[in-house]
Amino acid sequence: MSAPIIAIDAMGGDFGPHCIVRASIAALAEHPSLHLVLVGQAPLIEDLIAQSPTVDRARLRVEHAGEVVAMDELPAKALRGKPDSSMRVALELLHSGRVQACVSAGNTGALMALSRFVLKTLPGIDRPAMITAVPTRAGCCHLLDLGANVDCSAEQLYQFAVMGAVAAQALGVSRPRVALLNVGTEEVKGNQQVKLAASLLRRARGLNYIGFIEGDGLYRGDADVVVCDGFVGNIVLKSSEGLASMISARIEALFSSSLAARMVGLLALPLLRRLRADLAPAQHNGASFLGLQGVVVKSHGAAGVEDFKSAIRRALIEIEENLPQRLYGRLEDLLL
Amino acid sequence: MSAPIIAIDAMGGDFGPHCIVRASIAALAEHPSLHLVLVGQAPLIEDLIAQSPTVDRARLRVEHAGEVVAMDELPAKALRGKPDSSMRVALELLHSGRVQACVSAGNTGALMALSRFVLKTLPGIDRPAMITAVPTRAGCCHLLDLGANVDCSAEQLYQFAVMGAVAAQALGVSRPRVALLNVGTEEVKGNQQVKLAASLLRRARGLNYIGFIEGDGLYRGDADVVVCDGFVGNIVLKSSEGLASMISARIEALFSSSLAARMVGLLALPLLRRLRADLAPAQHNGASFLGLQGVVVKSHGAAGVEDFKSAIRRALIEIEENLPQRLYGRLEDLLL
Repeated sequence: MSAPIIAIDAMGGDFGPHCIVRASIAALAEHPSLHLVLVGQAPLIEDLIAQSPTVDRARLRVEHAGEVVAMDELPAKALRGKPDSSMRVALELLHSGRVQACVSAGNTGALMALSRFVLKTLPGIDRPAMITAVPTRAGCCHLLDLGANVDCSAEQLYQFAVMGAVAAQALGVSRPRVALLNVGTEEVKGNQQVKLAASLLRRARGLNYIGFIEGDGLYRGDADVVVCDGFVGNIVLKSSEGLASMISARIEALFSSSLAARMVGLLALPLLRRLRADLAPAQHNGASFLGLQGVVVKSHGAAGVEDFKSAIRRALIEIEENLPQRLYGRLEDLLL
Repeated sequence: MSAPIIAIDAMGGDFGPHCIVRASIAALAEHPSLHLVLVGQAPLIEDLIAQSPTVDRARLRVEHAGEVVAMDELPAKALRGKPDSSMRVALELLHSGRVQACVSAGNTGALMALSRFVLKTLPGIDRPAMITAVPTRAGCCHLLDLGANVDCSAEQLYQFAVMGAVAAQALGVSRPRVALLNVGTEEVKGNQQVKLAASLLRRARGLNYIGFIEGDGLYRGDADVVVCDGFVGNIVLKSSEGLASMISARIEALFSSSLAARMVGLLALPLLRRLRADLAPAQHNGASFLGLQGVVVKSHGAAGVEDFKSAIRRALIEIEENLPQRLYGRLEDLLL
């Protein structure tokens, strides 16, 4: 296969182009066959690249885009009012086949709206879903949807389950156990959409559907793919991030509460900090949009250099695994 | 005020009467004016009490109930088929005024159904809500609903907000900041129910409504009362418990990964274990049912002795603060 080329929206995210350019240059060093196209305000980006004179410019190109989608901008405005935004130009590069994936740390709603408009969804898919890998006791679990869809029908939950299973398989899980997130594990539990989605999933051949899972089962690793609507998924993910960061803060405070505690902290904190990346999964791993005709990875808005590099790595794997094409093949068999 | 009397469902919970009797005896020692009525299979309970010969029997009575609601029993069956269950007899004691509160670690759905049937809701309240105190960076936050209501209308979310504010005030928060849990903080974000509830809350006089809050804001302590439907609340709470217990397990594993790490662990783990209670809030604190004509506290099914004692303490505070009466007074002003 030819060398992978990824378009990077260099203007998105809370930390701006500085951080994204650094992450891109680091990713080029890590993946010798990778090519990147940095999309955004060319003079600014060229200045930032110039700070790293050893970078292999044969694998790093800059594409100018005059506009930027703000982090709090309404998706409709980004869609109608900014034809030359870095996000949109990056997606157009993907649509035209000049790159094989797009990575952005920008406004999630705008990225979703622009992706649907520019790339279109796969046949049979109503709306794309956002998925990320969440750490569990047993390893990791693929959670979707994460906020792209706040109200979901049972059919959409079913589509998410199918897409999540295919994505997990592409990422190396041999026969992914698929579960619906619910308030109990008995058949009678849950709202109408979840109960109806369960009855659709029970009839799906070739899908390893294991039933309902509760919130604690998610982190226990009881399933490989956990499906919920975007309202629930977004709140679960963000509250998990909030809890993890509160626990980190409390641990730091604990080890500065007395002189003796500070001494222990000197030894213990370096070990404990290793857990950090595990504790903010979406920030670290990035999230993919599934169901589009192309690979789009959403890096966390607050992503640092390492986090953005992880998002690029995720895009690379999805290119190598040809994820949209695999999804397309499986959806034909499994969709209703 | 007269000495507080609480009815204890001695048969509920995952660990059975043994744990509940021990917790009850410990609570009597801790609160010299407290009286308890242990409800359940009298011979069994008497045997367990007999193991603590120093207990003050003048403050500890046993009331026989011949049936037990199983942890996985359907609420409808508990309601119609078991007139003599320990849970129901305890609630009847409360309804008749012979006790001032009821504490159970039993089947949550059955406790809710029986409470509504036996005690009735306060005027103007459609359905009771479950509330608990969740630890935050700043202290704690009162989260409701936790699973009693999987589908909620905007009006119900509004009622939960009013009840949550009154409960927080009774527990010592002077002007509680009330927020709706959502996938974003902008007005356009969220599903229909949440958006409509926001417009009702913005118009409510005397309520300190501060708008939408995201999952991470919950643990950051951005609000004192956080309102969501029971589907979301149950999943947020259980996934938080699961994440916290996964982090505990990873920390223990980290400190046994090498000889050097084990040495550090000998010093660090006793400190870290202090965080445990914080990490499983609902298990530790218990949850109250708000909106009923009486104080009902639901202890976690997996509650140990200390946890069940905390639930008894919560019931005591609600009796002292006369919470149902206070709710009734405020609801008249604030309900639509």
